[in-house]
Amino acid sequence: MTDAARIAERYIELWNEKDAAERRSLFEQHWTGDATYVDPLMQAHGAEGICGLVAAVHERFPAFRFSLHGQPDGHGNHVRFGWALGPAGAEPLIRGTDFAVVENGRLKSVVGFLDQVPAGI
Amino acid sequence: MTDAARIAERYIELWNEKDAAERRSLFEQHWTGDATYVDPLMQAHGAEGICGLVAAVHERFPAFRFSLHGQPDGHGNHVRFGWALGPAGAEPLIRGTDFAVVENGRLKSVVGFLDQVPAGI
Repeated sequence: MTDAARIAERYIELWNEKDAAERRSLFEQHWTGDATYVDPLMQAHGAEGICGLVAAVHERFPAFRFSLHGQPDGHGNHVRFGWALGPAGAEPLIRGTDFAVVENGRLKSVVGFLDQVPAGI
Repeated sequence: MTDAARIAERYIELWNEKDAAERRSLFEQHWTGDATYVDPLMQAHGAEGICGLVAAVHERFPAFRFSLHGQPDGHGNHVRFGWALGPAGAEPLIRGTDFAVVENGRLKSVVGFLDQVPAGI
């Protein structure tokens, strides 16, 4: 049984990490080398691609933070969790749900869907 | 862009079909031969496995019907949709969210999560 909450927390930790070297280290600890990410707006794979995508989001929304929204759940190698993104300490503007496949405790693929997107984002 | 609503409706149609030959025909039209299904309680693959799993649910809940819950959405080859299961014409007892991967317009994999499950099911 996958530890859904732990997987989700590690994922959010990567997205919130502002330091590029630390992001890369988190990726190497918690993702597979060939991991893929796709959502309605972006896609990437591997350490370069996925860490680069996180960097781009930090650049676009420098004061924003990701947080978990609701309770992660999972079965087998499958995990889902809700997340929220918004200015630190304020009501989140964007919410989504991610579905991940885990391999030997590492994230192998993440497919994201958006649940709440304000106009103009 | 995948037609998420159409994919979701075809999926629900298979789950509601009471006739075994008709279920098999729906599977062959709308799923890939090597398709997989997994949720917290069950898993199956291919026509025999997945149609057999649907038959088992009909046997267990003969008066129940599946319906879509909310608006299916998708991007690329990925689709998600909410569903509900309960006695025809009554408030659904069970709700879930399924995440599907589509290949050439056919369902290739479905991963289901449960959102609402009454005690004792």
